[in-house]
Amino acid sequence: MASTPLTPSPAPAEHTEFVLTLVCADGPGIVHGVTGAVVAVGGNITESQQFASSETGRFYMRLQVDAPATAEEFEAALAPVVARHRIEHVLDRARRPLRTLILASKATHAVNDLLYQRSSGHLPIDVPLILANHDTIAPLAGFYGVPFEHRPVSGPEEKAAFEARVLEAIAEHDIELVVLARYMQILSPELCAALAGRCINIHHSFLPGFKGANPYRQAYARGVKQIGATAHFVTTDLDEGPIIEQNVIRVDHTRSPRELMAIGQDAESRTLRQAVTWYAQSRVLLDGTRTVVFR
Amino acid sequence: MASTPLTPSPAPAEHTEFVLTLVCADGPGIVHGVTGAVVAVGGNITESQQFASSETGRFYMRLQVDAPATAEEFEAALAPVVARHRIEHVLDRARRPLRTLILASKATHAVNDLLYQRSSGHLPIDVPLILANHDTIAPLAGFYGVPFEHRPVSGPEEKAAFEARVLEAIAEHDIELVVLARYMQILSPELCAALAGRCINIHHSFLPGFKGANPYRQAYARGVKQIGATAHFVTTDLDEGPIIEQNVIRVDHTRSPRELMAIGQDAESRTLRQAVTWYAQSRVLLDGTRTVVFR
Amino acid sequence: MASTPLTPSPAPAEHTEFVLTLVCADGPGIVHGVTGAVVAVGGNITESQQFASSETGRFYMRLQVDAPATAEEFEAALAPVVARHRIEHVLDRARRPLRTLILASKATHAVNDLLYQRSSGHLPIDVPLILANHDTIAPLAGFYGVPFEHRPVSGPEEKAAFEARVLEAIAEHDIELVVLARYMQILSPELCAALAGRCINIHHSFLPGFKGANPYRQAYARGVKQIGATAHFVTTDLDEGPIIEQNVIRVDHTRSPRELMAIGQDAESRTLRQAVTWYAQSRVLLDGTRTVVFR
Amino acid sequence: MASTPLTPSPAPAEHTEFVLTLVCADGPGIVHGVTGAVVAVGGNITESQQFASSETGRFYMRLQVDAPATAEEFEAALAPVVARHRIEHVLDRARRPLRTLILASKATHAVNDLLYQRSSGHLPIDVPLILANHDTIAPLAGFYGVPFEHRPVSGPEEKAAFEARVLEAIAEHDIELVVLARYMQILSPELCAALAGRCINIHHSFLPGFKGANPYRQAYARGVKQIGATAHFVTTDLDEGPIIEQNVIRVDHTRSPRELMAIGQDAESRTLRQAVTWYAQSRVLLDGTRTVVFR
Repeated sequence: MASTPLTPSPAPAEHTEFVLTLVCADGPGIVHGVTGAVVAVGGNITESQQFASSETGRFYMRLQVDAPATAEEFEAALAPVVARHRIEHVLDRARRPLRTLILASKATHAVNDLLYQRSSGHLPIDVPLILANHDTIAPLAGFYGVPFEHRPVSGPEEKAAFEARVLEAIAEHDIELVVLARYMQILSPELCAALAGRCINIHHSFLPGFKGANPYRQAYARGVKQIGATAHFVTTDLDEGPIIEQNVIRVDHTRSPRELMAIGQDAESRTLRQAVTWYAQSRVLLDGTRTVVFR
Repeated sequence: MASTPLTPSPAPAEHTEFVLTLVCADGPGIVHGVTGAVVAVGGNITESQQFASSETGRFYMRLQVDAPATAEEFEAALAPVVARHRIEHVLDRARRPLRTLILASKATHAVNDLLYQRSSGHLPIDVPLILANHDTIAPLAGFYGVPFEHRPVSGPEEKAAFEARVLEAIAEHDIELVVLARYMQILSPELCAALAGRCINIHHSFLPGFKGANPYRQAYARGVKQIGATAHFVTTDLDEGPIIEQNVIRVDHTRSPRELMAIGQDAESRTLRQAVTWYAQSRVLLDGTRTVVFR
Repeated sequence: MASTPLTPSPAPAEHTEFVLTLVCADGPGIVHGVTGAVVAVGGNITESQQFASSETGRFYMRLQVDAPATAEEFEAALAPVVARHRIEHVLDRARRPLRTLILASKATHAVNDLLYQRSSGHLPIDVPLILANHDTIAPLAGFYGVPFEHRPVSGPEEKAAFEARVLEAIAEHDIELVVLARYMQILSPELCAALAGRCINIHHSFLPGFKGANPYRQAYARGVKQIGATAHFVTTDLDEGPIIEQNVIRVDHTRSPRELMAIGQDAESRTLRQAVTWYAQSRVLLDGTRTVVFR
Repeated sequence: MASTPLTPSPAPAEHTEFVLTLVCADGPGIVHGVTGAVVAVGGNITESQQFASSETGRFYMRLQVDAPATAEEFEAALAPVVARHRIEHVLDRARRPLRTLILASKATHAVNDLLYQRSSGHLPIDVPLILANHDTIAPLAGFYGVPFEHRPVSGPEEKAAFEARVLEAIAEHDIELVVLARYMQILSPELCAALAGRCINIHHSFLPGFKGANPYRQAYARGVKQIGATAHFVTTDLDEGPIIEQNVIRVDHTRSPRELMAIGQDAESRTLRQAVTWYAQSRVLLDGTRTVVFR
């Protein structure tokens, strides 16, 4: 491939690994056009996935590209094809930690898992703040060196104040993702709207079974043989947002609701961690009320 | 244990492997009493499971007993403890094939699996008849030497006739279990009542999610990440009967409703086969709206 | 993309769905080049997967392309990029049934599953012949209308004759895939070599555990808590060929070797069916001693 | 049941929940005898499991019994039946935390999981000491308030000293279980012998596949489609001890050895936690080279 104006420097350019995600109306020539931009910047595709939704007619793509180019150079190379196919796209550095705000209540297992995985280098997020309406997580946050704020919520006014603080923290820390790690308050419609597409909740059932409160009690009463957990985007429609990941664990008639709850925590932590990891790696895209997950 | 009047014969008695299932109000001394009867007939317990339901206060037990005794001798030994604890019990020969009526519609996969497993000796049932409202299963039934009747159901009268034929066949063949192997008609409340506790259906979703018609279409629309199948007892409350077994299969955004249906058939067949096997082995007991499954 | 000499016809061309698989040394520009050929024939990519092996430095790709073009036109469009990157490629029609020879012994479950799935339209294979060294499968083959030959193998001469018949049948029916559906004879090194990369075996253990004979007996003795099945390519190194698919089933201490064998049959059938399906869909490529499976 | 000399007190006795495990040669009358002792102390069986091993001819039983009796009274009631059937038995309080010594090296995930689960009340163990040949676990141990000793092992002498310290700590803290939570040193035959039946290791593969060092590298090279973890008793025969629990996780060709290692950590932690939980609950019994696990 001949040299292009985008890589004029005679000095060997520094290599960057990029993640490019894009969405547009499906049609011919998109992949050829996008990969043309990759070739133009001397890039090497290290991972590539695509999906054409017959439901919405949209085309989704995620590329990892190792290139001796800057983001500006890559954007410039992409500009014509982006314009031609009316592509919405995001170009980012691979493995850049996502600025993540965690909301929690009393239960510690999901937060413990997220913080441990982050500290082990398996979960590419930065957590500038944990906000909780109980204080049980304070020691854990302290251990992992994550700022923690405890704001009790016992009435509508405190709830409004809590949510105001959420929005403030998002602005203050330039938050890209809000994770409800067993935060047991229902978000107001306004907050749901403000966080659309960037707020992940873990629900302690295999949705759409057992929406709402006390899903393990419901699962016990119904006598299910497997319990589950569901990570989904938060929408104003409670427990109805697009599903990102689900897991189940086999149980039997001997388990009490309390035991189901203990058993299920493992599925909850694992499922939330998986969803957050994929989101942080730009692998989760919205296709109407469904998600495209480029695992 | 000294010889008892129950085994008076000087000739060595023939050994039988029994299955004993029992239910009664929970209380002390039940196991001791029942195992006393086992000792009295010189029996050896080869499998034993029990469960005390905190929900209903009922005690459930299943024993396999190898004994040099007849059923009458064993019953006689059990009589005092049965009376003392007001036990409902069933004593049967282990591995006796259960007389099973299969109802089907167009889909062949579940029936194919049941008949193949039966012919392989893995599924202890006898199938004196398959009744279906379509004729697609006829060749399969023929191959396995199972009588097959095709009765179309296109209106209320034909449906009533179909159900009358079901009841007649039950009487005629002394049927112990009715299996709805993807029989796509809703049973009348009368038939549900008549078959209470001895009719198993396979529903092609992970209940309680996606009750009713077209569950794969519903699962697709909701964007679930695992699809499932549920074997349950039939009750008048559609898809709400006590669950016997459930399985799931991982799927992703690329699968169309039609593909989900094809993928799910494997879970359906496997789940139904498992539930029927356990039922035929007297491993499934009802505890209110839940099942006790002694796997 | 401007019109090309490859699609000169003013009449609307017939659409074909193609499957294109390719392998070459990894390097920049391959995807751009290949998708350029797709654009040239007016094709639409309906599925795309790729993998660059850090182990072997090879690049693998599988495309499904819906195009108003003939295979010749598509090949012509691909020719320059194929030459430039020294690509080995196969262009085929999507969903074309693969001509498949099944070898079997006494056990029927794997063959039953393959034939049932084929007849249901879920498994894109044609089976012009089943060869077996036992006759237990004859009725099943008859039911599904598949020619069946029984050739006993009780000594080296009969074994050589059996293998000669295999090679003859491959030539006679233009066989593309040989499936060992629980065929319990070890293939000669010569036959292994002749079938390299196009012969799939199902082994009844989770390889590399329990190679060789009686794996369920071995699994019982070792007290494993999950048993498994492995579908792999046949090589001269017994049970060491590249793995295509594996599944496990949970068991416990109560299961006898005989019960493990019965339980495991389900995993065997399912695993073999999955491997054959993927192979028939051109989703399985060899990367040294490992497989690339574009699921 | 009439009052017995064992419960003579007119004052209402305090209730205790006992766990009784027993092993003896199989034969008639054992369950009847044991449950007679339960009745004699006015006990109620809340959980009961049994297994007769056809391999060794041994009979295994585990009972949970809620009784208004002391351990001495229960032992006295058991004495005749224990003598008659030559039963080896252990009577303990249910949910009594097991005194557990953890050995570790550099990796923190397994220890983190054990300590978190213990602090959440899900894992009935007390950990008076963690001994490690690296210091990475020190902060974690500090956070959970568990004494931690770091003893480097870089040669045979240090290794001998480490093992001497293990034996000393066992005596000092009256240790009942030693857990190798990714302790990467091979125990000496002497230590293996000293810890027989009370030392659990987690191996990072699905044994018997990939014994020894670098199992993820081995798994990668072999191209397996599922990776696993195995918790087993330590014996002098490396990675050959009786298996307690195993789990697998699906992977594909895209995963590097390093990624397999990261993915597998979850299965390792979960599998070890499960095995330790069952052991601490007296659910794991040895039957020759196999385990009986009363889940």
